[in-house]
Amino acid sequence: MNLHIAVLSGDGIGPEVTNQSIKILNAVAEKYQHTFTFEEALVGAIAIDETGNPLPDKTLDLCLEADAVLFGAIGDPKYDNDPSAKVRPEQGLLALRKSLGLFANIRPVKAYDTLLDKSPLKKHIIENTDIVIYRELTGGIYFGEKTLSEDGTQASDLCSYSRGEIERVSHLAFKAAQGRTKKLTLVDKANVLETSRLWRKVVTAMASHYPDVNLEFLFVDNAAMQMVLNPSQFDVILTENMFGDIISDEASVIGGSIGLLASASIGNKYAMFEPIHGSYPQATGKGIANPIASILSAAMLLDHFGLSKEAATVRNAVERAIKLEICTPDLNSNGGYSTENVGTFIEGLI
Amino acid sequence: MNLHIAVLSGDGIGPEVTNQSIKILNAVAEKYQHTFTFEEALVGAIAIDETGNPLPDKTLDLCLEADAVLFGAIGDPKYDNDPSAKVRPEQGLLALRKSLGLFANIRPVKAYDTLLDKSPLKKHIIENTDIVIYRELTGGIYFGEKTLSEDGTQASDLCSYSRGEIERVSHLAFKAAQGRTKKLTLVDKANVLETSRLWRKVVTAMASHYPDVNLEFLFVDNAAMQMVLNPSQFDVILTENMFGDIISDEASVIGGSIGLLASASIGNKYAMFEPIHGSYPQATGKGIANPIASILSAAMLLDHFGLSKEAATVRNAVERAIKLEICTPDLNSNGGYSTENVGTFIEGLI
Ligand SMILES: CC(C)[C@H](C(=O)O)[C@@H](O)C(=O)O
Ligand SMILES: CC(C)[C@H](C(=O)O)[C@@H](O)C(=O)O
Repeated sequence: MNLHIAVLSGDGIGPEVTNQSIKILNAVAEKYQHTFTFEEALVGAIAIDETGNPLPDKTLDLCLEADAVLFGAIGDPKYDNDPSAKVRPEQGLLALRKSLGLFANIRPVKAYDTLLDKSPLKKHIIENTDIVIYRELTGGIYFGEKTLSEDGTQASDLCSYSRGEIERVSHLAFKAAQGRTKKLTLVDKANVLETSRLWRKVVTAMASHYPDVNLEFLFVDNAAMQMVLNPSQFDVILTENMFGDIISDEASVIGGSIGLLASASIGNKYAMFEPIHGSYPQATGKGIANPIASILSAAMLLDHFGLSKEAATVRNAVERAIKLEICTPDLNSNGGYSTENVGTFIEGLI
Repeated sequence: MNLHIAVLSGDGIGPEVTNQSIKILNAVAEKYQHTFTFEEALVGAIAIDETGNPLPDKTLDLCLEADAVLFGAIGDPKYDNDPSAKVRPEQGLLALRKSLGLFANIRPVKAYDTLLDKSPLKKHIIENTDIVIYRELTGGIYFGEKTLSEDGTQASDLCSYSRGEIERVSHLAFKAAQGRTKKLTLVDKANVLETSRLWRKVVTAMASHYPDVNLEFLFVDNAAMQMVLNPSQFDVILTENMFGDIISDEASVIGGSIGLLASASIGNKYAMFEPIHGSYPQATGKGIANPIASILSAAMLLDHFGLSKEAATVRNAVERAIKLEICTPDLNSNGGYSTENVGTFIEGLI
């Protein structure tokens, strides 16, 4: 298979971890005789520094004509503490999601047996946890109208959803549940929000087309609690944009490190693959960033194109590295290996 | 001191647990020679059943002329799964918060030494955790305009905040931090939301009036992760309404049971005291509901009126009960004591 992959490694540790994924994808291409070509472009704070725009036209054009996007990370503390900055790195990521129509963000969360001890949660709590979160990614309060009064004393953000927006991501979640243990949990705040009540209504109506799926509802506050009390109760979680952001970051602690969590952002036409950790500026350049989330995102890319044997090879190599503790310091208490070393070790297993 | 207390015990386990707090408050009144009078009124699903209104006028009038409100719980599953119900129990609680101007919801979260083993989190993670969450309670997306299109396919909720709304709750949080370890963490999503950027701007400007307080910022997704990874890093958390709802329910797992968490909702003129667990319908009438959250809410009531010796007596009695494992089944693995028995035991220690 020929794949032309846009590489947007972005800020902070983005480039370091993405480099490892590229190594792995190259090893896969060689072993299975595919042709993967990579083309880099700027995004985020580094794009602002160089062009003034967090998503330069050139970058968007590349993504629109590539087969897939491999994303690193964005964000820089110099923008976070300046509430009045007009241009911010995150705008690049949000504009990209919107322009590519990436309405579904898929985040698997798994407790690896050999890492059970690394989690802040007790072993018996997380054992056998295997969740996939379907987060709506191009709607809700992220993209609704924003206002700031002229005197700067009043601000607003609009959260809105249409039936169509809810249905398209929900279909994917129902289908995923069918291929798993057939349990789907809609997380919302239907006791307070009109948009949540629409979600509940639309998803309930859809359930009749998926009679084998057991649909449950959970208020987001309760979900945030249940995710820690008893995460293995969940199979597929479906939720709107902001709740998905919060719940999936929270869920990342189950695996023992956010440095393990991959994601795929899917639309009707485009797809982007991205570790869920951010730019982690404190770690930049130190060679301590965990490349596994990015490598597992590359595995999701392979799956997306039907290359499931290749994806399995990558996942097995990652599990092997974890089992042998060839891991960065977040997962290895004896100092650990560097980002580069972990990548090279996994590459060697392909 | 004379206190006239409105008792709104509400739905589910609300009445059972509130009865225990009343017992405790009566014991306090007797011991310290105060006169506490209690007057009951309807709220929530039970109020809908009896009057069609989740917050009948009579109830609101009582609250407006009482010195304080002791609240139980509201909510009934029969409304949760009916997205088109026009009247819902939660409206009663929200209307009450708004009508009484209860703009600050204060939720202390503490890891009791003798309960460290009950938490799903590892002991070394939660040890020494002692957090107070200040949640804005009468603004944000809870109270913004809601729309539903006529054909029912499009819905919206508006999140809005003004400088004044942010300042009044933030002053309380800064002051609380001054009386503690002087660390205040603002939880927001300033990389995405205009309202969050306003929060950051307003709170940053206020910080100069509290030079001894160390102000930090955390994105809500990261906060949801940090609350599990390393909760003892927090002292006072300040946040908007919806984020506060999620983060405080999540934080409840630290104590080992949501049945321990009390709250105070404070305004310029009125105050309401409420356990943070909900109506817990599955437990209703079984005598297994933990009364401690309600009893500790009563202790917050005492503190609110400057009765700090009395409040300390209640807290010590609760700690004693916990230490001796005179607890309901959620905290006692040998079957446990009934709601009533736990209340009576604590009453005996006053
Ligand atoms: C960087 C930020 C805008 C982004 C989000 O909130 O969606 C991130 O937290 C994520 O989850 O991908
Ligand atoms: C019952 C519900 C409306 C309420 C809220 O969301 O505020 C509850 O969850 C709480 O936290 O007090």
